[in-house]
Amino acid sequence: MTVETEKGLAEPAQFRIVGTRAPRLDGLEKVTGAARFGADIHLPGMLHGKMLTSPYAHARILSIDTSEAEAVPGVKAVMTARDFSIFERQPDVDFVAEQFRGARIMAEHFMARDKALYRGHPVAAIAATSPHVAEEAAKLIRVEYEVLPAVLTIEDALKDDAPLVHDSLTTVTRGPDGREVSDTKSNVASHAQLRRGDVEAGFREAEVIVEREFSTQPVHPGYIEPFATAAQWNPDGHVTVWTTTQGTFDVREGTASILGIPESMLKVIAMECGGGFGGKGPNTNPLNPMAAVLSRKSGLPVKMVMSRKETFESTCPASAAYIRLKMGADRSGRITAAEYYLAYQAGAFPGSPVGAGVQNGLASYKIENLQVDGYDVVTNTQKMQSYRAPGQPPATFAVESVVDELAEKLGMDPMEFRLRNTVQEGDRMPNGVLYPRIACMEIMEAMKNHPHYSAPLGGPNRGRGVSVAARAIGGEGATPHVATISVNANGTVSLVTGSNDLSGTRTTVAMQAAEVLGLDATDVISTVGDTESAGWSGVANGSKITYSTGLAAIAAAEEVKIQMKARAALVWEVQPEDVEFVNGAFVCTKNPADRLSFKELAGRLMRTGGPITCAGYSFPTGPGGVLFGGNLVDVEVDPETGKVDILRFTTFIDVGKAVHPSFVEGQAQGSTAQGVGWALSEEYYYTGDGAIANSTFLDYRMPTTLDVPMIDTVIVEVPNPGHPFGLRGRAGEIPIVPVIGAVANAVSNATGVRMTRAPMNPGTIAEALRESGAEV
Amino acid sequence: MTVETEKGLAEPAQFRIVGTRAPRLDGLEKVTGAARFGADIHLPGMLHGKMLTSPYAHARILSIDTSEAEAVPGVKAVMTARDFSIFERQPDVDFVAEQFRGARIMAEHFMARDKALYRGHPVAAIAATSPHVAEEAAKLIRVEYEVLPAVLTIEDALKDDAPLVHDSLTTVTRGPDGREVSDTKSNVASHAQLRRGDVEAGFREAEVIVEREFSTQPVHPGYIEPFATAAQWNPDGHVTVWTTTQGTFDVREGTASILGIPESMLKVIAMECGGGFGGKGPNTNPLNPMAAVLSRKSGLPVKMVMSRKETFESTCPASAAYIRLKMGADRSGRITAAEYYLAYQAGAFPGSPVGAGVQNGLASYKIENLQVDGYDVVTNTQKMQSYRAPGQPPATFAVESVVDELAEKLGMDPMEFRLRNTVQEGDRMPNGVLYPRIACMEIMEAMKNHPHYSAPLGGPNRGRGVSVAARAIGGEGATPHVATISVNANGTVSLVTGSNDLSGTRTTVAMQAAEVLGLDATDVISTVGDTESAGWSGVANGSKITYSTGLAAIAAAEEVKIQMKARAALVWEVQPEDVEFVNGAFVCTKNPADRLSFKELAGRLMRTGGPITCAGYSFPTGPGGVLFGGNLVDVEVDPETGKVDILRFTTFIDVGKAVHPSFVEGQAQGSTAQGVGWALSEEYYYTGDGAIANSTFLDYRMPTTLDVPMIDTVIVEVPNPGHPFGLRGRAGEIPIVPVIGAVANAVSNATGVRMTRAPMNPGTIAEALRESGAEV
Repeated sequence: MTVETEKGLAEPAQFRIVGTRAPRLDGLEKVTGAARFGADIHLPGMLHGKMLTSPYAHARILSIDTSEAEAVPGVKAVMTARDFSIFERQPDVDFVAEQFRGARIMAEHFMARDKALYRGHPVAAIAATSPHVAEEAAKLIRVEYEVLPAVLTIEDALKDDAPLVHDSLTTVTRGPDGREVSDTKSNVASHAQLRRGDVEAGFREAEVIVEREFSTQPVHPGYIEPFATAAQWNPDGHVTVWTTTQGTFDVREGTASILGIPESMLKVIAMECGGGFGGKGPNTNPLNPMAAVLSRKSGLPVKMVMSRKETFESTCPASAAYIRLKMGADRSGRITAAEYYLAYQAGAFPGSPVGAGVQNGLASYKIENLQVDGYDVVTNTQKMQSYRAPGQPPATFAVESVVDELAEKLGMDPMEFRLRNTVQEGDRMPNGVLYPRIACMEIMEAMKNHPHYSAPLGGPNRGRGVSVAARAIGGEGATPHVATISVNANGTVSLVTGSNDLSGTRTTVAMQAAEVLGLDATDVISTVGDTESAGWSGVANGSKITYSTGLAAIAAAEEVKIQMKARAALVWEVQPEDVEFVNGAFVCTKNPADRLSFKELAGRLMRTGGPITCAGYSFPTGPGGVLFGGNLVDVEVDPETGKVDILRFTTFIDVGKAVHPSFVEGQAQGSTAQGVGWALSEEYYYTGDGAIANSTFLDYRMPTTLDVPMIDTVIVEVPNPGHPFGLRGRAGEIPIVPVIGAVANAVSNATGVRMTRAPMNPGTIAEALRESGAEV
Repeated sequence: MTVETEKGLAEPAQFRIVGTRAPRLDGLEKVTGAARFGADIHLPGMLHGKMLTSPYAHARILSIDTSEAEAVPGVKAVMTARDFSIFERQPDVDFVAEQFRGARIMAEHFMARDKALYRGHPVAAIAATSPHVAEEAAKLIRVEYEVLPAVLTIEDALKDDAPLVHDSLTTVTRGPDGREVSDTKSNVASHAQLRRGDVEAGFREAEVIVEREFSTQPVHPGYIEPFATAAQWNPDGHVTVWTTTQGTFDVREGTASILGIPESMLKVIAMECGGGFGGKGPNTNPLNPMAAVLSRKSGLPVKMVMSRKETFESTCPASAAYIRLKMGADRSGRITAAEYYLAYQAGAFPGSPVGAGVQNGLASYKIENLQVDGYDVVTNTQKMQSYRAPGQPPATFAVESVVDELAEKLGMDPMEFRLRNTVQEGDRMPNGVLYPRIACMEIMEAMKNHPHYSAPLGGPNRGRGVSVAARAIGGEGATPHVATISVNANGTVSLVTGSNDLSGTRTTVAMQAAEVLGLDATDVISTVGDTESAGWSGVANGSKITYSTGLAAIAAAEEVKIQMKARAALVWEVQPEDVEFVNGAFVCTKNPADRLSFKELAGRLMRTGGPITCAGYSFPTGPGGVLFGGNLVDVEVDPETGKVDILRFTTFIDVGKAVHPSFVEGQAQGSTAQGVGWALSEEYYYTGDGAIANSTFLDYRMPTTLDVPMIDTVIVEVPNPGHPFGLRGRAGEIPIVPVIGAVANAVSNATGVRMTRAPMNPGTIAEALRESGAEV
């Protein structure tokens, strides 16, 4: 279902291809098993590598003796962190300068140098003629540790006498008063603050005030394909890496830096990616430099494939969060003030997405007086990493719970309360930036007017929850993209991009080029190139490729049109400005009988000067607006066991314009299902010594088809006036954001008890019910 | 050794990279065996295909029964010409319209339809789980033939009562009086004529006249890698072909046309090519459509690899030729007239390179009165095909023998005689086109002044031969090329072209881009893309890629410079026209202290608007000049056996500017060695029924290192004023052209007997000596 509330520039009728459900270009290969993923590379003479990881959450490495392992027949190379040349060039991490993404931190994250910082932290790797030999021999690497006290939770890490994860880490504060670097060593890597108005005065105006604490646990980004890499280090110093990643060019940059080779000596070829969701960003896969080093040392190609357990233990979950939120509203239903504290678990290295919570958590509401404080907290656990709308689901969980409770206390309809406070064009984001044309109100209205909102619940122990969320487009993470288009003689075009295709973006980018050129979607042959055959393109994260790489493809297609017009002008012996492109055909304005379709003219390129290949660029910097989404969810809570069943789920998503509605629906449904997992069942369950007790997909409970009903998707199209087709992008991100809050509100509605901890598994709910003395 | 006779625009000192001996980019992979050639592709579930070929030189196919073969366990598909859909769309060949290269002729060349036209003509193909099963099962395909009388030689084909190879073929004549199509069926596909002046009057002015007949045999292009193709036909109709070829995009066009699919549904990936020399042009490999059809029928990928015998029997040799030449010269040594008749064997389909003989045979000499007639003659032998300077060695053999004899009769020094008749800028080619700046005189002067020319022969039975040759650049075969350059953050660039690299052109094209951008050659990462990742590029023939694709790379690099200047202007807050590129650095003309090297600016692209990717084009049409070469060769002839030993060989080559002198020397040496083979030992030896009696490299005698001495190379650089670096290209072609003539002249000089037949093997020479009654 598509609610078209077209108020901007774009009229649906004006598009031929954008908005249709074109065939998915990678569909056949994916369903027949022909697609080749990270582990599907086979090279002559290839060795198999395995990691050895730390059995301690925090331990100094005193010595590593690899001699016994090296003596095992079949073992060809052993490596440790000493083989990463970056450690010679940069012995120490400069946490203040490097922040989250520097290669130096990445290197230490990939392999422990002086200290193992979490259980599962790689300390050595080995390559042998078979994976079994490698695995057995790895056990013979003798590592002498001095075990150190560890901090595993945000709470422990923030204690005054907490052991320090890093000896040299101090807090960097960024707030309205500027940037400040503390002298004191701490587990808090950064503190971000937003302030507006007078919070105390705001609370004085309030009729009702709600203040609550919330917590969520680390969760897995949910990709099915474990990490895999193959590397070949040629004797002349050229290195090729085949890997599963969201960011081919970023992997090149980071890996080359760790290895100490120029990035031009490293070719990165991305295989098909079996799910990423942020978890396969450029700084997540330790196997890339490991396999390269093992290949250099052995002189043979080396493949490394992680087991599921290794993927859990040695790569990156999404952050746990601890949040306090106090909000007030006056009798009219106006939110008067908010005080919002967010502490996110960064794991072993700084870089939790707390900033996204700070920026977006309150972004759906017009609030005159607010203060937001976000803290990035390191612990002796895996380095946390991006996962679909990074950092936002916990932040929105808190906001939407408190907003719901404010409405309840005022006796107002929850959607009506939200609508009274909705942001619109001209209002300010929490960080003070003015909103352009946005769809917050349209999303809320679509929710309120949807039949689901007024349908009867139909039984006891049932409840309905609503939740609304915002996510800024673009901003810091914006990266440039390049697309190249070559015209074929039969009127099709070949499109090459360097953006990893995680969700059908080969198709959606091709569709936009087809739209510009008056072609069918299948007339565009869309290829994802490697670092040496494609132009530089940013990482496929933030659900932005359809938007960002699409803009590059549009630019390339527009350039193709310009060059084709010049060819038509040659044919007709007129000036290029006398040629127009109308309805897929070039027409001479001086003689409208002179008309050549794109395909006809394409067939004449060789006789009018030769082939046409054009490059196009995009660099969508700065906040390009904010995307909104919302949920209506019905649940039934078993009063005895605390088990929650999702009865009905409707997700509302604002995409500006859906290039391919089926893909948007698929993204919304998948994203929602992942949100349900985060809300109800998923968590990294750590034992006291920092081990993950549930490091398999049997024990780590992601929702299955039995756990979620068919998720209804409502696409709200309020065109982005800054995009030629009205796109906003981020379709895969926003749907996960409201889910925890919506489920919590539904559970509260069913039970009368506010849930403030996720996952809301039967144990948590039963305990909450018991604590509150509520009866269902 | 490089003779620099710089008279044009280019000064050697002005180049940093062009003219150096940079590392060969594909060198390491080639010498370590890591490079992957046509047969090195392995696909999951892959079948192996084999051809069944005709045992008759000319036979009507009455029926093909594949049932017994299909019943063999392991056989998955059998195909015949009926599976090429082009035969349905175009039941008949239109020889007049289609000439040499049309897909319809190609289809029938690849697989016999109604008639087998030569021994080895494929009639069916089969795919099975192993190549052995396929080979055995192919023998069970029952083909019923009606054997027809065959013509195997030019002489037989031209007889009035000759059997017709094609029932519908008539002669197309192109001459000074226009184009004419004969009504009479014939084995002569075309007749090209050039005329100038008054030939009879010219001969009346002559003091001496020489008239002789010459003949040469079909020879093998000499590539070592047999043909190989793998194909995968996906259920959605997308086809991928991996092959060994000189022309990826041409293979796409031809194969798609034969298969009846849009070219955009076919992706062609060229593996490394193990030698081509023209023999792996786009219309030579029958395996491409065969493997595709077998994959479609079986649903599995299919690989086909030819044996050496199959490569000899079912693919394309270079044409045999029969030539008559009459030339006269006056007492002063001026050539007064020439009458030149060339008949070339086209094999089973029209398309011998007789036109190149017609155009270039006499192109080294200023001749006022001439008539040239060239005939393209079909026979019941393999379709003849391009081979290094196609068609020219036999033509020049005739001209240089007769020119030598004229000098001899006039008692003149052979080089002095040639110099008196040399063409220069402003003279006309045989076809009437004016010569631009050329190097014919410089080549002749370099030969005459070379120590080799005056060195004593040093023994009995020895002789010295000279020979000079011309080869037009560009012309009919000119094709466009595209290059794409992306700038990397570390100041290197990635260069993508679609031109197959047969001789190091990845490197030479990269060097030209490096020259423009002020980079080192190794700063350019040079990749050959497939049909979906590279811009359209013409076939790598005519030894033109360094020239043609180089121009595209130069254009792309110039565009990169323009865009980089705009970035520098942003940095310095000036206008782009205030930025100059000097000695590898961008400099602000308004403030020369503002200076950024290419690498420095490359590192700032992401902060000045994003990455840079630029496409460049070239379409060098029309004759871009003529290239010249010459030989000095000393031989010793064994008077008893007639065996010729090459004692010393110096080859002179005019390249305009040698981008990479080592590569030019290598091309010249290899090309010369092939010429020696053609002159002394190589020939397809047909038995009376059209079978090749020597279809292995044991029996087909290519020269080995024991047969040729070190070949000295003299590079003469007379810059081409039409090229930014002075290149002429064609370095791999011209050196083979003079060789047969030079060797023949040397043998004549040693024995006193004119050799008019190649190969001049011991039998031929002994017979010639016997016939002449000469004593050595």
